[in-house]
Amino acid sequence: MKAFFDPRQKSHDPQHFMARGQRLPSPEAPKRADILLRGAQAAGCHVETPPDHGQAPISAIHSAEYLSFLQTIHARWRAMPGAGDEVIPNVHPANRTDSYPSSPIGLAGYHQADTACPISAETWHAAYWSAQTALSASEAALNDGVAYALCRPPGHHAFGDLAGGFCFLNNAAIAAEHLRCKGLRPAILDVDVHHGNGTQGIFYERSDVLTVSIHANPEAFYPFYWGHGSERGKGAGLGSNLNLPLALGTGNDGFIAALETALDRITCFAADVIVVALGLDAHESDPFQGLTVTTEGFGAIAAAIKAAGKPTVLVQEGGYVSDDLGANLTRFLDGYLGR
Amino acid sequence: MKAFFDPRQKSHDPQHFMARGQRLPSPEAPKRADILLRGAQAAGCHVETPPDHGQAPISAIHSAEYLSFLQTIHARWRAMPGAGDEVIPNVHPANRTDSYPSSPIGLAGYHQADTACPISAETWHAAYWSAQTALSASEAALNDGVAYALCRPPGHHAFGDLAGGFCFLNNAAIAAEHLRCKGLRPAILDVDVHHGNGTQGIFYERSDVLTVSIHANPEAFYPFYWGHGSERGKGAGLGSNLNLPLALGTGNDGFIAALETALDRITCFAADVIVVALGLDAHESDPFQGLTVTTEGFGAIAAAIKAAGKPTVLVQEGGYVSDDLGANLTRFLDGYLGR
Repeated sequence: MKAFFDPRQKSHDPQHFMARGQRLPSPEAPKRADILLRGAQAAGCHVETPPDHGQAPISAIHSAEYLSFLQTIHARWRAMPGAGDEVIPNVHPANRTDSYPSSPIGLAGYHQADTACPISAETWHAAYWSAQTALSASEAALNDGVAYALCRPPGHHAFGDLAGGFCFLNNAAIAAEHLRCKGLRPAILDVDVHHGNGTQGIFYERSDVLTVSIHANPEAFYPFYWGHGSERGKGAGLGSNLNLPLALGTGNDGFIAALETALDRITCFAADVIVVALGLDAHESDPFQGLTVTTEGFGAIAAAIKAAGKPTVLVQEGGYVSDDLGANLTRFLDGYLGR
Repeated sequence: MKAFFDPRQKSHDPQHFMARGQRLPSPEAPKRADILLRGAQAAGCHVETPPDHGQAPISAIHSAEYLSFLQTIHARWRAMPGAGDEVIPNVHPANRTDSYPSSPIGLAGYHQADTACPISAETWHAAYWSAQTALSASEAALNDGVAYALCRPPGHHAFGDLAGGFCFLNNAAIAAEHLRCKGLRPAILDVDVHHGNGTQGIFYERSDVLTVSIHANPEAFYPFYWGHGSERGKGAGLGSNLNLPLALGTGNDGFIAALETALDRITCFAADVIVVALGLDAHESDPFQGLTVTTEGFGAIAAAIKAAGKPTVLVQEGGYVSDDLGANLTRFLDGYLGR
């Protein structure tokens, strides 16, 4: 299986993570990329650096003002007296329909949904190459049937104009839209333990890309405000979003049952390509402790996706440092390949 | 002049303040109350503890779910494994029309607009007595023509269901609504250096309470998203909100000129009582460094308000620790009394 990764993706090294009122080290550390790289190689992947597809396919998903924000905010922020090294929002507009702000602090609150997506001088380039990695894998999957994108930073919490939850550019959405522009009918299947709220938001009023997410129930789990079963899409998109929240602690059986429902919906949609938002944080040893899928479980999940018989782009999302992270990716990729 | 203050207001002692990506000590420290108390006494105020008007006049401004949140969230928060001592939001819904969350973290992001309003076990009681202080002063002002409420924590950034910027209960709004329920026609005049966004939001679609705010231009100053001249009210409230933003660094002359405009509008509204949201942070030595009003300037501001010839409730808002904070209050109160 071809895999894609660019070393520039590691330059983003977030230092700030606020959870439950405490400042902690960010779980979205660059060493995740090293672990995942070894996990992919252990499954026999040939890892290539992605060619540059330019900004156009990113602009098909993200607003011009948001992309400008990501590229320029760090320099503007650091120019403020007393500013810290990272752009971290401290005030948020309660209603996104308010007028567009002009100050760095106003912009941060407008374009960053939470305190888990600090922006450094390197963030834009790391996110840019993470998106290029997804684009390259989407093209390889059309040729080879499947490909893996080692996207890091991840993407599925990023909306069209909003960073959040370690995410800046929505790699899976960018890949899906790139495929749609080639005349395909993509379904995004998000198996990350966290609901894919950004992806849902991007396609919420559209019927040409199906979005399906299996995740820990957001009643007591990030992202809290999205991911309920009642969120089915809006306008032309009504029915084109499917959320399958699982009770905290759900294991392999419950996950696979939800996956069958998800794959039935994808078949019904007549998707001709699947973009998997491949979080590995549903694992029982993941630091976020939402679900209890096992390493073997990831093999079964991959086999079920493979059985759908469609070209598949595997886009890395979450999955945080534990002794099992690399093995979980290896098992998933092996499972997809029928091993 | 009668003044009101309850020592329980000092029990709220916020430890967390995030600004420009740095964690700093909160400027809204309990010692502000001591300094302001001495400042009021130096102007000859007789300081009384407020009687308890109960929760009903607070419920006339704040939603039931928000008041429940303020009273219960700290215990729920602390029950989470690994939770810090204070409730501090780390993720915010980008659109307030989303469904109401159930988890402590979800609730914190829903009801706290920023990271500058941490909630401790003491916050509710301190805010409750701050509101009672404003209610007591509003009644005294009807009898005596003027009264001072040493409200701390302050209130003008609190919306009907949203804390923010050191504020939990909107004391000025609670006082104004209390007076309106007695058949009066109140105008709120906010002279704090920060726009009174919560007060504006509470009355934005109403025509029975006029809201006027003079403040540093929010293009580059907290609260960033509100306070522009174009925000004039909505629906029945169109025209009943007046914002007078001033360029950063504006001094006495510019402030007094805006105040004349504000007082003309209040006269035109035929207000029969003025609630002054009395921030003292427009002062040249205030740590927030937004405007450059002098101590003498506060005397002139007070004299101009007195010349409007209406019963006046002075509700303390911001004004942070500097060598001049106490003297600024003394000068304001003396100025109002024609000294």
